[in-house]
Amino acid sequence: MRLLVVNPNTTASMTEKIGAAARRAASPGTEIAATNPRTGPVSIEGYYDEAISVPGLLAVVRAHPDADAIVVACFDDTGLDAARCLTAAPVIGIGEAGFHFASILSNKFSVVTTLSRSVPAIEHNLVRYGLAHRCARVRASDVPVLDLEKGDPDSRAKIAREIRLAIDEDRAEAIVLGCAGMTDLAASFAEEFALPVLDGVACAVAMAEAMARIGLKTSRRGGYAPPIAKPIA
Amino acid sequence: MRLLVVNPNTTASMTEKIGAAARRAASPGTEIAATNPRTGPVSIEGYYDEAISVPGLLAVVRAHPDADAIVVACFDDTGLDAARCLTAAPVIGIGEAGFHFASILSNKFSVVTTLSRSVPAIEHNLVRYGLAHRCARVRASDVPVLDLEKGDPDSRAKIAREIRLAIDEDRAEAIVLGCAGMTDLAASFAEEFALPVLDGVACAVAMAEAMARIGLKTSRRGGYAPPIAKPIA
Amino acid sequence: MRLLVVNPNTTASMTEKIGAAARRAASPGTEIAATNPRTGPVSIEGYYDEAISVPGLLAVVRAHPDADAIVVACFDDTGLDAARCLTAAPVIGIGEAGFHFASILSNKFSVVTTLSRSVPAIEHNLVRYGLAHRCARVRASDVPVLDLEKGDPDSRAKIAREIRLAIDEDRAEAIVLGCAGMTDLAASFAEEFALPVLDGVACAVAMAEAMARIGLKTSRRGGYAPPIAKPIA
Amino acid sequence: MRLLVVNPNTTASMTEKIGAAARRAASPGTEIAATNPRTGPVSIEGYYDEAISVPGLLAVVRAHPDADAIVVACFDDTGLDAARCLTAAPVIGIGEAGFHFASILSNKFSVVTTLSRSVPAIEHNLVRYGLAHRCARVRASDVPVLDLEKGDPDSRAKIAREIRLAIDEDRAEAIVLGCAGMTDLAASFAEEFALPVLDGVACAVAMAEAMARIGLKTSRRGGYAPPIAKPIA
Amino acid sequence: MRLLVVNPNTTASMTEKIGAAARRAASPGTEIAATNPRTGPVSIEGYYDEAISVPGLLAVVRAHPDADAIVVACFDDTGLDAARCLTAAPVIGIGEAGFHFASILSNKFSVVTTLSRSVPAIEHNLVRYGLAHRCARVRASDVPVLDLEKGDPDSRAKIAREIRLAIDEDRAEAIVLGCAGMTDLAASFAEEFALPVLDGVACAVAMAEAMARIGLKTSRRGGYAPPIAKPIA
Amino acid sequence: MRLLVVNPNTTASMTEKIGAAARRAASPGTEIAATNPRTGPVSIEGYYDEAISVPGLLAVVRAHPDADAIVVACFDDTGLDAARCLTAAPVIGIGEAGFHFASILSNKFSVVTTLSRSVPAIEHNLVRYGLAHRCARVRASDVPVLDLEKGDPDSRAKIAREIRLAIDEDRAEAIVLGCAGMTDLAASFAEEFALPVLDGVACAVAMAEAMARIGLKTSRRGGYAPPIAKPIA
Repeated sequence: MRLLVVNPNTTASMTEKIGAAARRAASPGTEIAATNPRTGPVSIEGYYDEAISVPGLLAVVRAHPDADAIVVACFDDTGLDAARCLTAAPVIGIGEAGFHFASILSNKFSVVTTLSRSVPAIEHNLVRYGLAHRCARVRASDVPVLDLEKGDPDSRAKIAREIRLAIDEDRAEAIVLGCAGMTDLAASFAEEFALPVLDGVACAVAMAEAMARIGLKTSRRGGYAPPIAKPIA
Repeated sequence: MRLLVVNPNTTASMTEKIGAAARRAASPGTEIAATNPRTGPVSIEGYYDEAISVPGLLAVVRAHPDADAIVVACFDDTGLDAARCLTAAPVIGIGEAGFHFASILSNKFSVVTTLSRSVPAIEHNLVRYGLAHRCARVRASDVPVLDLEKGDPDSRAKIAREIRLAIDEDRAEAIVLGCAGMTDLAASFAEEFALPVLDGVACAVAMAEAMARIGLKTSRRGGYAPPIAKPIA
Repeated sequence: MRLLVVNPNTTASMTEKIGAAARRAASPGTEIAATNPRTGPVSIEGYYDEAISVPGLLAVVRAHPDADAIVVACFDDTGLDAARCLTAAPVIGIGEAGFHFASILSNKFSVVTTLSRSVPAIEHNLVRYGLAHRCARVRASDVPVLDLEKGDPDSRAKIAREIRLAIDEDRAEAIVLGCAGMTDLAASFAEEFALPVLDGVACAVAMAEAMARIGLKTSRRGGYAPPIAKPIA
Repeated sequence: MRLLVVNPNTTASMTEKIGAAARRAASPGTEIAATNPRTGPVSIEGYYDEAISVPGLLAVVRAHPDADAIVVACFDDTGLDAARCLTAAPVIGIGEAGFHFASILSNKFSVVTTLSRSVPAIEHNLVRYGLAHRCARVRASDVPVLDLEKGDPDSRAKIAREIRLAIDEDRAEAIVLGCAGMTDLAASFAEEFALPVLDGVACAVAMAEAMARIGLKTSRRGGYAPPIAKPIA
Repeated sequence: MRLLVVNPNTTASMTEKIGAAARRAASPGTEIAATNPRTGPVSIEGYYDEAISVPGLLAVVRAHPDADAIVVACFDDTGLDAARCLTAAPVIGIGEAGFHFASILSNKFSVVTTLSRSVPAIEHNLVRYGLAHRCARVRASDVPVLDLEKGDPDSRAKIAREIRLAIDEDRAEAIVLGCAGMTDLAASFAEEFALPVLDGVACAVAMAEAMARIGLKTSRRGGYAPPIAKPIA
Repeated sequence: MRLLVVNPNTTASMTEKIGAAARRAASPGTEIAATNPRTGPVSIEGYYDEAISVPGLLAVVRAHPDADAIVVACFDDTGLDAARCLTAAPVIGIGEAGFHFASILSNKFSVVTTLSRSVPAIEHNLVRYGLAHRCARVRASDVPVLDLEKGDPDSRAKIAREIRLAIDEDRAEAIVLGCAGMTDLAASFAEEFALPVLDGVACAVAMAEAMARIGLKTSRRGGYAPPIAKPIA
C-alpha cells in the first residue's frame, strides 16, 4: 500500500519529522511518501497561510495518482475538500483524524494548538464536522510552529501547561495535539498525564491505511465530483 | 494483534458471517475472535433487545482481557459506553465507525437500516455523536434482521430501492448500511450505484486495528473510568 | 391511580427514601409502589452500573402491568427507552423530569450531581433531549451516592458549595439536583439560596400523575413499539 | 389549588371550551378560573395578534395574585416570559406543555396547527426551547382558529389529513395539536390514529397542577426577576 | 430616503441621543425620523418592559406608512416580528444588526449589555437567529439603562472592565454594545481596545439604508403576512 | 467611497455584469472597481475551482490597499477568511450577504444555485455562519455558471421552477439566488413570485457601503490577524 503524506508547508525538516511519524504509525508493508510543495509558506499559521499553500498541495496530489490514500499533514485540514475532487483515494486531514478518534476514545476532548490566531479555523472545522460539542475547548499554547522544530524545552512546558488546564478546567478526557509539528510529543505527554494524547499524524496515517485496506473511496457524487474540464486563464 | 469482535445477539450464523467479514477487513497478521454472548436475544431490533443484550456483551468483554481492540457488531452501538468502562482497549461500534468514515468520504450520507423501529435509536446516536447534520436521512428497508440471514433476494431488492431513493431524494453522496447482517452486500451495492457503500463491520475492524497499531487507548478519566468495586446483589 | 417508582439500584434504604419522597409529591388518592430490582448494583455511578441495572429494572416493570405510570428513579435515566417498549403507561426518568421542569421555571439551570464520572452520561442525555443549551453546566460535588445515605453533613456542604458556584459563575436561575439520593435536600437548598431547587423524584412523580390523569400513553409506533416476540437464548 | 387559565384572545366561546377542557384535565379538588382579557384580538393568528394580546393577558395575571399556577392557553406561548416576571407561580404555555410531554412519550412528534402564518412562531419556539430536533414537522391544516368554534366537520377532516401525513411522511410517533381551539378533538384523533394526540390545554393544566403540588416556583433570579418599579408614561 | 428610528421606551433624552447617532450613521440625503411611543416604560430592562412597550411601538410604525425602512432601537429587538407584519419596509432591530455585522467582521464576538436581567432575552435571540455559536458570551456590566443617560463616568468604567474581560477570557475578536444608550461610547472603546466595537444603532441605520437602497422588502408570505382584518374587542 | 468588487473567476463578461449590478446597488458617490484575477478558472463550480481561484483573488486584494470595503463576488464565499487577514477594510462575500439579509426579511429562505456539485459548499457555509436552520433548502437548478452568461431563456425557466418548488414545498418566505451570474434576474423573479428575491451582489455591495460609512473594520485580533512575515519558498 502506498500512502502519500503531504506537509503543505515548505519546511523540509518538518516534512522529515512528519514522515518519520507516519512510518512509525504505518504497517510494515506500507510505503510512505512524505513530501511538501515546492513553493508556499514555511509554516501555516492562520487563514492566509492556509489559502496560499493549497495550490502547491494540489499539485503534489496530482503528481501522485497512484497513492492508495492521502494524508494532509496540517492541523487546519487545509485544502482537504479541493484535494478530494482530484482523486478517488481517501483524503484525510490530521485535524479531522484526531477529532474523530478522540470522540471515540473519550466523552470530551480538548485541543492544544500553537498560536491563538489558529484557534478560529480549528473551531470552525469542529462546527462543520459536527464535533464541536465533543470538544471542550481549543487552547493555544503560544508556541509558534517553527519553534517546535528547534526542540525548545520551553515549548514542551508551555504545551504541558495547557494540557494540565484542559484536564483540570475543561474536564477533558483526552487531548488532541493541534499541530503536525507536535507529533513526537504525544507519547511522553500521554504517559505524563495518564490520558490519551492524540497526534493527528499518527491518527490520519492509521485511518488512511484502514480505509484503503477495506477498499473505501472518496465519493465522486455531489461536492467531491471531479472538476469540470475547463480553461484556466 | 488480537481483535475481539462481539456480535451482541445469539444467532451463531450471523456471528460467523460477521467473523468472515472481519477477517476480510483485517490485516494478514491480525487474529480475529468473533463471538457472541451465550444468552440474549436472537436479533437486536429496538431499545428493548439492546438493553437485554448488554450484560451478555459485557461478560464477553470481561472474558477477553487480552484483546488489543474490541468491535461491537450491532449497528445500534449497543452497550458501547459500558464496555469502555471495562477495558483500556479501544471499543468501537459498527454504527459509529460507519458514520465517522462516511463523513470523511462524503459531504452527506444516508443510512439504510432494517425496520423502522430501529430508526430512532440510530438517529439519537447521530445526535449524540454530533454527526446528525452530516446524515441526510436514516431509511428503513422493512427487512427484519433475520431475513438477511436467509439470503432472501427480496431483501436485497428492498435495500437497493432505499439506496436509490437516498441518492435521488436525499442527495446522499455515500450510503452506510445499517445492520451487521448486511455486511456481505456492501461491495455489490457500491458497484451497482457507483458511490461509497460502507459496511460498519469492515469499518470498525479497520478502525480498531488502526487505533491499536498506534497505541491508542480508551480514556480512563471521567465517564469511562473503571467501575468502583462494590457488591452486586 | 397507581404509580410504580423503581429505584434501579439494590440499596433498600435508598428505595425507602425515594418512596417517602414520592408519597410527599403525590396526590392524596395516589398509590405509590416504590421498589427496586432484586439483583444489581448497590448504586449507579457511571455507564457500567447503568447497563447492568437495566435487566433488573425491566423485570420490575414487567411485574407491574397495572401501573398507571412508571418513574425510573435514577438521575441517568437508566433503561428508560427499553422500559417504554414494555408498556403503554408513561415512563418518566427523574433526570428528564427535572430538566423539563427547570427549563419552564428558568431561562437557564445548572445540575449538581455526585461524582465526575457521572457527568458525561448526564451531558449526553441533555444533548439527546435537546435541552443542552438550557443547562449552563453539569457540576460534580464529589459526593458518592452512598455517602448521601449516611446523612453526612459534609455531603450537604459540598453540594451547597456547587450550588453557590452555579449561581455566581454559571448565572444559573434554577438548580436540578442530580441524584435520587438528594431528594430530601431540595427544600432546604431552595430556601437557603432563594431559587428553585428541583428534586427529580418529586418532579417525575408529579409529572407521571399529570400524564396519567389526562390519559396520555407512551407511543406504540416506531422506536417504542413492543418487542417482537422471539426466543431469548 | 387554584389554577388560572387565560385564553389571551377575547372570544368568550373559546374561553368556555378551554375552561371545560381544563376542568376535565384537573384533579377533583382543583379550582379552575378560565378567563380572557377584556380587550384584544378575537383570535391569535400570527405575531401581530400575539403582540397586541399581551398587555391584556398581563392585566389578567396581575388581577389573580392568588393563583397557584397559571396556564396561557394560546399555542404560540404568547407573553409567557413577561407573565413570569409578574409572579412566583409557575406559568405554563400550552405549546411548551405539549412539546415537553410529547418528547417524553415519543421519539419524534409532529405539530398540526391552524394557518401557515402561525408556523414560524411555533418553529421559533421549538428552537428556543431546544426541542426542534424532536419535532419532525410543524404542519398547517389551513383551518382558521374561529372555524374551529363553529364545529365545522370540514375542519376536522383537514386536521385529520395532516395527522395522516405526519404519520406516513414524517414518521411522527405522536401528534401535538397546535391550537387551544382543537382541545376537544384530541381524544377522538388518538383513537382513530392509534397514537398519542396531545392537547396543549390538558397538558398545561396537568403540568401546572403537578408543579404547584410539589411547591415549584418560577425563578426570581435573572431573566424572570420582578420588573423594576418605574414610571410608565 | 426616509428612515423611521423608534426608541420603544418613552425617555425623550434617549430618543434624542439615538436620533443623533442615527443621523451620524446615515448618508447625507437620508431623512431620519427618531421618535418614541407616547406611552410605555421609561426604559426596557427585561421581558415585562419589552412586552408592554410593544403596542406603543406598533402604533408608531402604523403612523409612519411612508418610511422606507424602520429601525427598532432597543437591543432586545422588541416587537420586531409584530412590526414586520405591518409593513413591507424592512424592519431591523439594533440587536440583530450588531450580531450580523459582528459575525462578518470577526470570528467570535462578545456582547456587553446593561443588567444581568437582560441577558437571557439576548441569549434567546442569538439562539433563534442562529448566531449563538458566534457569540462567545453575553456580559452584564451592571449599569442600568438610565444611568447611561446621566453620563456617569463610573458607567463607562464598568463597561470597559467587561470589554477587557471579553478580550482576555472570551477571546472575543469584536464587541457588540448591548444597549441603545451606549451608542456614543463605541468609537472611544474601539480606539481604546483596538478592536471593532459595534453600536447597534449605527449598524441598524446603515443596514436599513442598505436594504432600502437596493429595494429589499420584508416578505409578505408566511409568518410576516399582514394581519387578518378582524375585530379588536 | 471606493469599493473593490472582485469576481474571483476570469470571465470578463461576468465581471462586467457584476460591476454593472454593483453600480446599480451603490450610492451615487461610491466608486466601484470591479475586477477579476488575471489567472484562474473561468468559473467556480465546486471546491477545486474555489481553491485555485484564491491566490489570484488575494493578489487583487493586495493590489487595492485603498479600498474602503471589499466584496467577493462568488456565492461560495471563496477566500473570504484569507482576504480578511490582508486588510482592515470589511470584506463581504455575496453568499453571506444574501443569507444575513434574507434572515432579517423572512422567517425562512431557500437558496437556488447552479449545479448540485456546488450545494455542499453552500450548506457548509450556512452551518459555519450559524444560519443553517434559517435556510429551508439549498436547491440546484442544473444551470452551469457560464450558461447564465449566454442569456439562455431555458436557464431562467429552470431557476423559476426551483423558486416555485421552494415556495410550495419548502415554505420559503424569501429566495436567495445562489450565483453572481444570476444578478440580473432577481428583480423580475421578485415581481413574478411576489416575495423577496435576493441577489448577493447587490446585498454585499449595499452591506459593504453600510459598514464603511459607519467606520467598521475587520478585526485584527485572533483569526484575522495580519499574516506573520515569513519567507514564501
